[in-house]
Amino acid sequence: MTQLLRPALTGIALCLSLVPAHAAPPQGEGVAWDIVADLTTEIGPRLAGSPREAAARDWAVARLKALGFQNVRVEPFTIAGWVRGAESAALTGPYPQPLHITALGNSAPTPAGGLTAPVVYFASLDALKAAPAGSLAGKIAYIDHAFVASQDGSGYGPFGQARRQGPAIGASKGALAVVIRSIGTDRNRDPHTGGTSFPDGIKAIPAGAVSAPDADLIARIAGKGQAMTMHLVLEGHAVGELPSGNVLAELPGRDPSLAPVLLACHLDSWDLGTGAIDDGAGCGIIAAAALNVAKQGQPLRTIRLLWAGSEEVGVFGGAAYAKAHAAEPHALAMESDFGADRVWRVSFNLAEANKPLAERIAAALAPLGIPVNAAKAGGGADIGAIAKAQSAAVIDLDQDGTRYFDLHHTPDDTLDKIDPEQLAQNVEAWTRVVAIVANEAGAISGAAQ
Amino acid sequence: MTQLLRPALTGIALCLSLVPAHAAPPQGEGVAWDIVADLTTEIGPRLAGSPREAAARDWAVARLKALGFQNVRVEPFTIAGWVRGAESAALTGPYPQPLHITALGNSAPTPAGGLTAPVVYFASLDALKAAPAGSLAGKIAYIDHAFVASQDGSGYGPFGQARRQGPAIGASKGALAVVIRSIGTDRNRDPHTGGTSFPDGIKAIPAGAVSAPDADLIARIAGKGQAMTMHLVLEGHAVGELPSGNVLAELPGRDPSLAPVLLACHLDSWDLGTGAIDDGAGCGIIAAAALNVAKQGQPLRTIRLLWAGSEEVGVFGGAAYAKAHAAEPHALAMESDFGADRVWRVSFNLAEANKPLAERIAAALAPLGIPVNAAKAGGGADIGAIAKAQSAAVIDLDQDGTRYFDLHHTPDDTLDKIDPEQLAQNVEAWTRVVAIVANEAGAISGAAQ
Repeated sequence: MTQLLRPALTGIALCLSLVPAHAAPPQGEGVAWDIVADLTTEIGPRLAGSPREAAARDWAVARLKALGFQNVRVEPFTIAGWVRGAESAALTGPYPQPLHITALGNSAPTPAGGLTAPVVYFASLDALKAAPAGSLAGKIAYIDHAFVASQDGSGYGPFGQARRQGPAIGASKGALAVVIRSIGTDRNRDPHTGGTSFPDGIKAIPAGAVSAPDADLIARIAGKGQAMTMHLVLEGHAVGELPSGNVLAELPGRDPSLAPVLLACHLDSWDLGTGAIDDGAGCGIIAAAALNVAKQGQPLRTIRLLWAGSEEVGVFGGAAYAKAHAAEPHALAMESDFGADRVWRVSFNLAEANKPLAERIAAALAPLGIPVNAAKAGGGADIGAIAKAQSAAVIDLDQDGTRYFDLHHTPDDTLDKIDPEQLAQNVEAWTRVVAIVANEAGAISGAAQ
Repeated sequence: MTQLLRPALTGIALCLSLVPAHAAPPQGEGVAWDIVADLTTEIGPRLAGSPREAAARDWAVARLKALGFQNVRVEPFTIAGWVRGAESAALTGPYPQPLHITALGNSAPTPAGGLTAPVVYFASLDALKAAPAGSLAGKIAYIDHAFVASQDGSGYGPFGQARRQGPAIGASKGALAVVIRSIGTDRNRDPHTGGTSFPDGIKAIPAGAVSAPDADLIARIAGKGQAMTMHLVLEGHAVGELPSGNVLAELPGRDPSLAPVLLACHLDSWDLGTGAIDDGAGCGIIAAAALNVAKQGQPLRTIRLLWAGSEEVGVFGGAAYAKAHAAEPHALAMESDFGADRVWRVSFNLAEANKPLAERIAAALAPLGIPVNAAKAGGGADIGAIAKAQSAAVIDLDQDGTRYFDLHHTPDDTLDKIDPEQLAQNVEAWTRVVAIVANEAGAISGAAQ
């Protein structure tokens, strides 16, 4: 038992095994741990639209039913599919060196046999934006950046644009391909994948990310003003429509006339890792919290879980949910999709009239050392569409993201990265919040825009 | 300037740039940094016997001459060559999951198309040793172990036997292939390669190592008593004789009648990383220390550098050196081949008559916070043969190995893992010791066996 969590136990009956960090994981009674452990062991990588994502849906339905959830079902939809292929890269000049690369989602394939071209180095996305039109014809544009770790992960928004927008901007200036420094904060040789996109009117080109040590090599050579050439093989490519789906499950409330509380995570993962922190952990946390609340007595409002499909490749699941459930009122939505490290802060997007509700939640979280963020809750990808459409309330339990981008979208996203104690702290924080909102009789809604 | 190194500066003229940890690397004047930075940038991976190892020898000769060393030359030899090929693995049952694997040096290739077979899990090498003869026919033997990090790296000896001996033991019991948990202490998805060997009379079989997270997956499934099958592609294979060579360089002493002081590192690297900590750093440290000593005035004894070839695949360079220089007396040998983290201890193998010499060295190192190890110096791989043959003295400047086996023999062995300040501390410790031994007029020899 830890000092941190001791105060919690006096207030609420816990069904978690709280074990020291790095000790053996909870056995049996740890619903969150069991979900992420079994999902990563029995399914593993589950790319959106793939047979493994379908297997994950089957697994999820069986698990959620076994845990006692009701109305467990799959809501199918289709997505614009993309599959990975062979991928490799090497500097061919001035020094021959292999590079560790991975294709970005929605990358176009390189020609048969790959391509070899001069590299134009840009120290930032802004530098690429400033390149003259047509200046990249026949070239590989390389984008560097300075993303570093922070607790709130706030660098991911701006620096992640090198991945999200960089390839399309390079394409618009005639580049044959775009390669970026991985959007990550680690020093491993495993590059970070992630989605990019090409707006209408811009033809997709091959796009990949190299690992940080490879990016350092490129920066050292660029820093000396030496010309570089690169050979690139990225066979990932679009494949038309693929099947996907959301998994929904409920713990029905006592008053069906009240809008449900929506708790979301995503079930798909990038294909490189096993989707432990992104986002098996989130699915475990929300399921465990919902069950904890139910053990305190049937809640007033229905608690609905959304284990979304195809989040990584374009938030298809969140969009499909918002469309399918547009006619149904949603009072409040929460999402867990930022790893498994401890909740350190709570953020609200609540109407002024819900200030007392926010105060009760803050009081319940204070014994866990969780303060209130002055800034408004941003919500998450999968609840974004429905919350926006209905001006629903959003509460974020902000997780410590200091090491999240060491692992995010890499092969290193595996079960061993989850600290059982911090996972349990997440479940405890979620349990406290959901217990309050699911038993709130008054109207709940988001802040005025 | 750091607190740690301040005392040093009052005693000895330094030509190093001592910068804070993680600050910009030393510019220009940092000989050790420049060697490891340029070797990893301009050459990169340099597998024993490969064209890249040959390129590294050319690079080394040019660099050592430019630094002012004399008698710079290559002493060629040939080795039993091995080259890596395509490699991949997957569990096919009970759950289909890709595994991250790399072949061990001297692995035999899998048949065309790979092989698929049941896995027999052994929790340790001892468990494999206890398996009945013939019991592994048609099976893949899997060896787990419990290697954890320590400052002196002492777990590598015993636990590394799973890699060194495991495949041959598996083969002797009929196994189709042997797969091991990487001999490493990290949590990355990059498996650790390294040499294995098959004694005469035991036919080589495919042998590979999976990363720690993959090994954890296998252990979880084995822990539930579930049967596993694995698909294995390991195309690495022996290729007959290949050219290699040692690079030698000297700073001639004032008295050629005195036996030289031999300082060794190895120039080859495993092919997965760029050989920064293993062992570009060692080559930088010994060269920088030798130059520092020469700047204090021409030493009494010749200082000879041995940048050995083909260490990783069987210490061929050390053996070739011992054979080529058998007739030449060697008083003392030192080797740097354990990364670039700080020297924390000094170990001696010195004759009783050299006790005053040891005391002078200990006194020179004490201001750096380096105490004397009670145990005798073990020496290093490349100086082992010559030191043993001549009962030469050996002094080890023991480096902190706490994170060495996170990186050892993986793609993650890259320049960014080197802390310039700790590298500079190595050079300072080496400079102090070499300044004393290279100016020692009296006889120097190893302890009686």
